[in-house]
Amino acid sequence: MESLLVGALDIGGTKIAASVADVTGPLARVSQATIKTGTPRAVPEQAIALLKQACDKAGIDFNRLQTVGVGSCGPFVANVGMIELATPNICGGLGHRTDLPNDWTVIPLERVLRERFQHVVIENDCVTALMAERTFGAVQDAANCVYVTWSTGIGFGLCVDGNVLRGKHGNAGHAGHMLLNPESAAECGCGNRGDLESLISGRNLSNAHGIPAPELFQSARDGEPAARAIVVEAARWLGRALYNLTITLDTSVFVVGGSVWLHHGDWLGPIVMQEVESRLQALTKGVSIVPAGLANFVADIGAFSLAMPPAWIAEWRKSAPWQAFHS
Amino acid sequence: MESLLVGALDIGGTKIAASVADVTGPLARVSQATIKTGTPRAVPEQAIALLKQACDKAGIDFNRLQTVGVGSCGPFVANVGMIELATPNICGGLGHRTDLPNDWTVIPLERVLRERFQHVVIENDCVTALMAERTFGAVQDAANCVYVTWSTGIGFGLCVDGNVLRGKHGNAGHAGHMLLNPESAAECGCGNRGDLESLISGRNLSNAHGIPAPELFQSARDGEPAARAIVVEAARWLGRALYNLTITLDTSVFVVGGSVWLHHGDWLGPIVMQEVESRLQALTKGVSIVPAGLANFVADIGAFSLAMPPAWIAEWRKSAPWQAFHS
Repeated sequence: MESLLVGALDIGGTKIAASVADVTGPLARVSQATIKTGTPRAVPEQAIALLKQACDKAGIDFNRLQTVGVGSCGPFVANVGMIELATPNICGGLGHRTDLPNDWTVIPLERVLRERFQHVVIENDCVTALMAERTFGAVQDAANCVYVTWSTGIGFGLCVDGNVLRGKHGNAGHAGHMLLNPESAAECGCGNRGDLESLISGRNLSNAHGIPAPELFQSARDGEPAARAIVVEAARWLGRALYNLTITLDTSVFVVGGSVWLHHGDWLGPIVMQEVESRLQALTKGVSIVPAGLANFVADIGAFSLAMPPAWIAEWRKSAPWQAFHS
Repeated sequence: MESLLVGALDIGGTKIAASVADVTGPLARVSQATIKTGTPRAVPEQAIALLKQACDKAGIDFNRLQTVGVGSCGPFVANVGMIELATPNICGGLGHRTDLPNDWTVIPLERVLRERFQHVVIENDCVTALMAERTFGAVQDAANCVYVTWSTGIGFGLCVDGNVLRGKHGNAGHAGHMLLNPESAAECGCGNRGDLESLISGRNLSNAHGIPAPELFQSARDGEPAARAIVVEAARWLGRALYNLTITLDTSVFVVGGSVWLHHGDWLGPIVMQEVESRLQALTKGVSIVPAGLANFVADIGAFSLAMPPAWIAEWRKSAPWQAFHS
């Protein structure tokens, strides 16, 4: 009997990555810019084609692949119980962006994947990252934890009492769009003013201050006063958002990833935590913040972890096969 | 064999209510002002004495009562896995209020109750209310719902994917202390400025405007312009908080209780929902708000529902015995 194979898809607004693995670890990975033309089926059809390419690269018969875990950008909507994507950065028909060469309002992701694969598990990308960190990363088996990504955008994956939260359509964790300062002029792509993402995302800081986010954060680290004031204020807003999540969910630990935290978490962490710990100490005392453990592997490993057999988990925890894997 | 009895405790900062029930419904209820003097054991000892009084009133041997459900004000802290109360309105040793005649920092609620009863289930008062509404009230068996109380204070009970959220110490749902406008001068009893409770609770609106909250809300309903502006703005802040919870939890329905909603939910509901629905429609479309179904019974019935055998639920759903019950 041939060994089980699992596919992983990381579907983002910019690119799609497809990987295939067996019990020993990932075997091959390919990626491509996300297609924006054709019918609404184009994105899932591209994803299937990329999984075939990954199988070809690994020398595997594509027909053997019947199980796929998918981490995808959202938001999700449901159509007869099937997950569809209503993603402003891909679907031109939603009217948020005028530069998209399509009129899609939704992408029938689950339906098209299920036409080809027997087993399909789809979660939003931050839930996927949270599952990666809880399964193989910095918060293994933590019952009350929150994954945070601070990068171009802001996203969260939430776990309470050992259950990863999904919500009515699998959109739990869109707290990047939490209103923190409704009187602020800062504008988010979603149309909100003064939500967390408008105040701190790399994209919005860059737009607001006319300087690429990596340069802004480096200047702040170097002590340039104007940059430092902007970045410290952003870290404080993140801290207030983490405080809001702490008292809402009675969280124990935040695990933070994304490019901002990867490069600047060391000095921003205490500024963030000061905002959490200075309030309502019956709930905030002892809450901790840790850097994500899987860095650039988090999306792929998370997508695998959605669909892999439980027996693989112990194997992969021992061998950490992603560390040796390069696409 | 004698029939099973279940006790219910509603422990608040102002009063404690104790009830006893059998499969047919509540049999007797007593209440008393919450004790604030003596040792830290005084409150749970008072609760036990009240349960004895309820049994006496119902003509039941108190020794038969071995199962108690408890809805209590929080926050909770844990001591060797046992729930203790660290409630600013009761514990003088916490330093939030100078008018309390004790130096308690915590109340060993669970330990003292377990010395007397074999089965004890304790939840915070908003989780208890949520369970009442999910079991017998306006959102029966809803998988993704949030209970909100708008009264002297503001509290929430959260349910996602069919699971009621507790968090690391059972404090999930303290979102009344969610920061919404950190630059506001409005002050909350917890020390925050610009959290939801500081902006809209009956106590804080009354303090800020020098008029009892019921009068303020009635004047607003009657169209007095200044009162109306204050109350409409408060409803908008609540709407922003419900929006924040919707996008964080991907909620379907809010069930709202408390004295403000009981008397004014009819005209405040649309103002609140406008703030929810005007943002991020992939998540907010179709979200609804309904008035709580159990009104003044919610605390007692919730506490019973924590501890009652599953077989009672079908009986009580049919007979709604609380409707005929007066203490």
